[in-house]
Amino acid sequence: MNLKAIQKICYGVYIISSKKDDKINGQIANTAFQITSDPPTLAISINKQNLTHQFIESSKVFSVSVLSKFAPMTLIGKFGFKSGRDIDKFTDTKYKMGRTGVPIVLDSTVSFLECEVLSMTDVGTHTIMIGKVVDCDVLGEGEPMTYAYYHTVKGGKEPKTAPTYIKEESIKPAPEESGKYVCNVCGYIYDPAAGDPDNGVKPGTRFDDLPDTWVCPICGAPKSEFTKE
Amino acid sequence: MNLKAIQKICYGVYIISSKKDDKINGQIANTAFQITSDPPTLAISINKQNLTHQFIESSKVFSVSVLSKFAPMTLIGKFGFKSGRDIDKFTDTKYKMGRTGVPIVLDSTVSFLECEVLSMTDVGTHTIMIGKVVDCDVLGEGEPMTYAYYHTVKGGKEPKTAPTYIKEESIKPAPEESGKYVCNVCGYIYDPAAGDPDNGVKPGTRFDDLPDTWVCPICGAPKSEFTKE
Repeated sequence: MNLKAIQKICYGVYIISSKKDDKINGQIANTAFQITSDPPTLAISINKQNLTHQFIESSKVFSVSVLSKFAPMTLIGKFGFKSGRDIDKFTDTKYKMGRTGVPIVLDSTVSFLECEVLSMTDVGTHTIMIGKVVDCDVLGEGEPMTYAYYHTVKGGKEPKTAPTYIKEESIKPAPEESGKYVCNVCGYIYDPAAGDPDNGVKPGTRFDDLPDTWVCPICGAPKSEFTKE
Repeated sequence: MNLKAIQKICYGVYIISSKKDDKINGQIANTAFQITSDPPTLAISINKQNLTHQFIESSKVFSVSVLSKFAPMTLIGKFGFKSGRDIDKFTDTKYKMGRTGVPIVLDSTVSFLECEVLSMTDVGTHTIMIGKVVDCDVLGEGEPMTYAYYHTVKGGKEPKTAPTYIKEESIKPAPEESGKYVCNVCGYIYDPAAGDPDNGVKPGTRFDDLPDTWVCPICGAPKSEFTKE
């Protein structure tokens, strides 16, 4: 059984948001898909440990923002590798309130869908939530980010609560040139050949030459959290 | 509500196969996604009208073949726009029998997953089937086809039983140059500028100049089933 077979399945990169009482939260997810066309219904799969899961269970509403392929890793890091229990993810994030009172992230968003939950199915670590689309719109002409693009072009990783997470030790990496450093928090690999252009670091910059103020573009961990690959 | 928002969600293009007694069948689907990583489980969404739905309900096993971006439209047409009630789709298709006795399509396949059904959730016109992966492998180095690629590069359409189907009249087409012909059966548009290279028709070939033996590359309908767009 070669589990890399599962990695060939295609996903997008989304921010799923919800609310509970007067609190709002959101998270990155790669699983969203249409169920029926009439009425338009959508399903998402959310880890039970996540705060957004709690919020959707409580309010029975959620929104899906389809991220552009140009979404910066800082946005993905904030919504994907940090918990709403620790930070307010909507500070410095452009969003609007939907008609159901759910927040809808607009930063780097090519389209959004606002949904009312019709049903929830327990699938072990995750819950599949099916929602009726009550509002949706396209924002601009941008191209959506695919999960494959996030992995191969942006060098992105998945958090341990993602359905697609595979323990690093179960994947044998190809022999790599040295000079790369891996983030102990989220698994992001700093590759000097690629640099970190989103944050002003040119390709060809050695890890040691990164400024001390540089942080992991995904999870925000400092340089001291990195170890040589 | 701009329903084009839903079209920004990312999908792949898969052949889902199953069996019932000594019969085998398969169909195109764009919805397959991982649910949990340990044990590896997968969900698919299948229209209740489809023969493959009947077969999975009966045998409780299915396979998913992840199609390559170079999969020919004839393969997609055979599995996506024809019914196993009318033809044997596995004639002239390369496949193998999996360990559960389910057929696994190997033509234009970059990876496959063989699953035993754990649960089924009724979602109106469709059923979400969750399966435990009992076997899987990667076949070669090919890149998977995304649904966006199928639409924009291959000019593909969806059958009426797809969750993503939207009635043509609800989408206002952009003004087009003339010379295009649309298939009345499946909606495929023959564009003379693109030709039909999969079937030896060079770009620049007018519809009238297509040989009488030419058939719709998706559904196999004859030239007489085409009308000027």
